[in-house]
Amino acid sequence: MVNIGIADTTFARYDMGKIAEKTISENSDHKPVRYTVPGFKDLPVAAKKLIEEEGCEIVLALGMAGGADIDTQCAHEASLGLIQAQLMTNKHILGVFVHEFETKTEKELKEIMIDRTRKHALNAIEMLKGKTALTDKAGRGLRQGFPDEGAIK
Amino acid sequence: MVNIGIADTTFARYDMGKIAEKTISENSDHKPVRYTVPGFKDLPVAAKKLIEEEGCEIVLALGMAGGADIDTQCAHEASLGLIQAQLMTNKHILGVFVHEFETKTEKELKEIMIDRTRKHALNAIEMLKGKTALTDKAGRGLRQGFPDEGAIK
Amino acid sequence: MVNIGIADTTFARYDMGKIAEKTISENSDHKPVRYTVPGFKDLPVAAKKLIEEEGCEIVLALGMAGGADIDTQCAHEASLGLIQAQLMTNKHILGVFVHEFETKTEKELKEIMIDRTRKHALNAIEMLKGKTALTDKAGRGLRQGFPDEGAIK
Amino acid sequence: MVNIGIADTTFARYDMGKIAEKTISENSDHKPVRYTVPGFKDLPVAAKKLIEEEGCEIVLALGMAGGADIDTQCAHEASLGLIQAQLMTNKHILGVFVHEFETKTEKELKEIMIDRTRKHALNAIEMLKGKTALTDKAGRGLRQGFPDEGAIK
Amino acid sequence: MVNIGIADTTFARYDMGKIAEKTISENSDHKPVRYTVPGFKDLPVAAKKLIEEEGCEIVLALGMAGGADIDTQCAHEASLGLIQAQLMTNKHILGVFVHEFETKTEKELKEIMIDRTRKHALNAIEMLKGKTALTDKAGRGLRQGFPDEGAIK
Repeated sequence: MVNIGIADTTFARYDMGKIAEKTISENSDHKPVRYTVPGFKDLPVAAKKLIEEEGCEIVLALGMAGGADIDTQCAHEASLGLIQAQLMTNKHILGVFVHEFETKTEKELKEIMIDRTRKHALNAIEMLKGKTALTDKAGRGLRQGFPDEGAIK
Repeated sequence: MVNIGIADTTFARYDMGKIAEKTISENSDHKPVRYTVPGFKDLPVAAKKLIEEEGCEIVLALGMAGGADIDTQCAHEASLGLIQAQLMTNKHILGVFVHEFETKTEKELKEIMIDRTRKHALNAIEMLKGKTALTDKAGRGLRQGFPDEGAIK
Repeated sequence: MVNIGIADTTFARYDMGKIAEKTISENSDHKPVRYTVPGFKDLPVAAKKLIEEEGCEIVLALGMAGGADIDTQCAHEASLGLIQAQLMTNKHILGVFVHEFETKTEKELKEIMIDRTRKHALNAIEMLKGKTALTDKAGRGLRQGFPDEGAIK
Repeated sequence: MVNIGIADTTFARYDMGKIAEKTISENSDHKPVRYTVPGFKDLPVAAKKLIEEEGCEIVLALGMAGGADIDTQCAHEASLGLIQAQLMTNKHILGVFVHEFETKTEKELKEIMIDRTRKHALNAIEMLKGKTALTDKAGRGLRQGFPDEGAIK
Repeated sequence: MVNIGIADTTFARYDMGKIAEKTISENSDHKPVRYTVPGFKDLPVAAKKLIEEEGCEIVLALGMAGGADIDTQCAHEASLGLIQAQLMTNKHILGVFVHEFETKTEKELKEIMIDRTRKHALNAIEMLKGKTALTDKAGRGLRQGFPDEGAIK
């Protein structure tokens, strides 16, 4: 049993971190370790600290981006930082970002946040089993936050 | 009590650094350490130097971006640099950027600069208490410079 | 005979990884080593781990990007990560990305995925022979996923 | 007295490097060290070499960008490289870039190049005095190449 | 006499590498070392390997980008990688990229490729002579692939 990091924000409009904690606890014996920061640009170093200071084997970086162009740019910056943090630690950090432009209603936005967080928490648990744990699902058009698109026949 | 870095610029049209100093002094026993540079692209290395040369545990990087496309690009570059500096030091650097396009009047621009700086200075103080110091505010839709959006019910 | 890494995703709508495995096995005595992750932003660290943890001499990073702007941005982030991973390891990681906007039909999308994967798997085998193994094809306007454009006379 | 690096290009349409040399010599006892490269994308490593191979304490990176979109992209790449070089060396590199789209006449372009170079050379001299040397000018809306905008009252 | 690296691609529609080899041989006693990769995103690590594994003192990274938006993005990624590789090695890598949108005819495209490659090969030879070898040409508005724009009087 290992530590799974959960980095989340006060900016998001739904407590994605709680969903991640719950999913991990209900589906594994791994220990969720929480780290809350103001916004998603604070997530990369938070994720790296979870790995290097808290011994997490994998991290979920949970964030919500506003709908303006500048928000998309900020999410881009955060994503680049998350990739860099992974390359510096050789650990996976699953970026779980939800953009306001993905839907028009608050209700659907919340549902996307829940579904995407839950599915990526399950991905994290699976990935801890080894490099080919997800290989039987390769190329299947799986989606998080939306229904799977499926493989092209 | 630790050092909190404040990196600010001569480019900004309001003395955000002074607001940060005041907020830290009034709300904690931490010591603010100031570093002023010409523009926001000079902030990443200034923040890193505050951490590595002045022993700051956390840094506020304060900047104002003009309203043209090239200014947004420069802010983007600075933000990427701030994220990189954090990953190199394992310390938080809270980017407190205000864009001229966020409002139409100078008065509001100044108010955003003050509010965002003050709230992030308080965030910095809070974050020094530990990884879960902000967790009770996770997913609450908090904003700096504008009113909170709140959690989606 | 060396290990050739194959990093692929559950997001893609066709099993590009299987095509790569098959191409390598049929055209060389090298050993394909598979690593499946959720999306293409997870590919950079997967590729780096294949090199550093599985001793791969070269890696194929296989991904499919959706047609929306945000998908193109994500592919951009992944590409930057792949380049960074190569610079950190001094090994080639051939990015084999297919974008939904490259074609209008699912059938053609699948054909591009197959052709691009197969040709880059052959490139990988060739590149293992040395720095000038591809030099007789330099400047020939070779394409993967589409017919070659050829050299300008 | 220390070395101040001046990295400039053959691409620029005015000898910004000479202006920098002159400003430094007339306003300090520091020694300007020149390094000329073809274009602004060559500036990051030139600046880093000035710091690491010539012992420069601070560097001015002088460049002019053409007016097309691709030129703006190139300037973006150069800026990111300059930020990275600073983070690797913990020294300031003041990016002094002039874009053709900033003005419509050659005469004004030249004037911007001269003014921006001169003011940033003075900034460099000032910054060598310490982290708070510019603090009395913080938030004053200072500009280089254009008149100051001033502080918002 | 030192090694000059030449990294080129099979994607380009003209053998830029051969032009570089010829220019170096005809104008210096340096030894050109060739490395051919599939596309320009493979150039950064190729250039770094030429420096670190083949002892090259400077590298020419030769590439041609298609005319679509995604091609420009790919060239952007490659350019960022080349800058990063330079910062990691403290050696110059001259990016010699030609974009299809620079001209409308194949004939002109070929001419740009030849001229830009040749002029940058000459730049490389010059730069090996020292940091001020190009200083007498600083600010002269030199161009590669097109006629010089000249200095603003």
